[in-house]
Amino acid sequence: MAFEHNITVVKIGGNVIDNEAALERFVADFASLPTPKILIHGGGKLATQLAQKLDIPTTMIEGRRVTDAATLDIVTMVYAGLINKRIVAKLQAKGCNAIGLSGADGNAIPATKRSPQPLDYGFVGDIDATKINTPLLATLLEQGVTPVFCAITHDKQGSLLNSNADSVASAVAVAAASIATTNLVFCFERQGVLRDIEDEGSIIPLITKAEYPTLRNESIISKGMIPKIDSALLAIDKGVASVIIKHSEALADESAGTTIKA
Amino acid sequence: MAFEHNITVVKIGGNVIDNEAALERFVADFASLPTPKILIHGGGKLATQLAQKLDIPTTMIEGRRVTDAATLDIVTMVYAGLINKRIVAKLQAKGCNAIGLSGADGNAIPATKRSPQPLDYGFVGDIDATKINTPLLATLLEQGVTPVFCAITHDKQGSLLNSNADSVASAVAVAAASIATTNLVFCFERQGVLRDIEDEGSIIPLITKAEYPTLRNESIISKGMIPKIDSALLAIDKGVASVIIKHSEALADESAGTTIKA
Repeated sequence: MAFEHNITVVKIGGNVIDNEAALERFVADFASLPTPKILIHGGGKLATQLAQKLDIPTTMIEGRRVTDAATLDIVTMVYAGLINKRIVAKLQAKGCNAIGLSGADGNAIPATKRSPQPLDYGFVGDIDATKINTPLLATLLEQGVTPVFCAITHDKQGSLLNSNADSVASAVAVAAASIATTNLVFCFERQGVLRDIEDEGSIIPLITKAEYPTLRNESIISKGMIPKIDSALLAIDKGVASVIIKHSEALADESAGTTIKA
Repeated sequence: MAFEHNITVVKIGGNVIDNEAALERFVADFASLPTPKILIHGGGKLATQLAQKLDIPTTMIEGRRVTDAATLDIVTMVYAGLINKRIVAKLQAKGCNAIGLSGADGNAIPATKRSPQPLDYGFVGDIDATKINTPLLATLLEQGVTPVFCAITHDKQGSLLNSNADSVASAVAVAAASIATTNLVFCFERQGVLRDIEDEGSIIPLITKAEYPTLRNESIISKGMIPKIDSALLAIDKGVASVIIKHSEALADESAGTTIKA
């Protein structure tokens, strides 16, 4: 299959979703990117706020949220309903032919319910990139349609599952890489991977797989970034051309952020 | 375009959505229908219940609900999120390759915000069957995919809109009729159009356009059925082959209910 451009997979989180002005700006920037492209969004604070209003208690195990049946309903409403459709309507208004999907739609992203042993996180789904419905992605992208995924998946047995949006983005990028050259962009609230967490100007522009162990050993890569970069390198091992970590406001700036490559 | 079967467009409402057992049964029956097929679902009581829990007041004008911004968020969460994705996951489990869509997705169903004059119903969208994205429907149906629509639409300017699910079903059926012979099935809580509202056995099996004025004049068609049959005849005028009004439990029974034809 031949596209005029590489496939761009972009992931956004709470700093965009929870801020109306940031979302408007992001949507305009994302709409202006050439196709083929795919957007994955997280959930932000809306689900927690709705759960609080509904007096649905939040249970945490080892700092991670448990998705019981009531919480699954909340995240399905907020992620697959409110946030997903708001983004799609805004993208449509900007001339981007977006289609909002959960992992259940078209069996796009099947997942496996995490074992309740040793810790029961409830309706949480783990994703395997090789199970993603790549032909569906290819069909949509070929037609110039832009899939917009929330991180709600399903177990193919009739249950929806709550998945991690970063994991969905990585898996979708790995699947897309089997269609065409794919770059994965993680947007967040910082300018990139920083040498000095206090200095937004201290961006490391490029991290290669070979350089990474040194950066880790010298503690230049800070604690919170390690799982992000580990998962970026894993995606690269599986065929993604590059992973870019940048501020959501810098989406349209090709030189911004940190690029991670093989 | 040639399909092995006619297109079946099915609409369900609260009696299926609000009852877990009825929904399970309906999903199994719908999954067993041959493709191509399309499902449209209403909202049931869940949105009203959620609004009550969140202390969002319901404003009625002349017996019809006003969709203010807070109510639009509620119906988007419940219809496009919870109900739509629950149905899709259940259909996927039955081997039906369902894809859940709002009217914003792929610009499937653009709508026009109803004028605030003389009465302001808020974010309510009126639909024009000629504006439906028929090529998108055709592409999905050709690939054996079953679209599942909620009645959330959009104005193409970035706003979601709340539309009437019966109107969405009629408009989608009229659009589908330009692809292939299309039959529209309205499922509800009665066996069909009844001669005697107290007697579920008094089903009128067939109503033709020619017979309808007589049935109305003789008051055999009761008050609540008149808008349903008017809208069925309008869909038939616009190319739909037949409209069937039947109990949701009788979906798989081809002889059940009332058939309305030209």
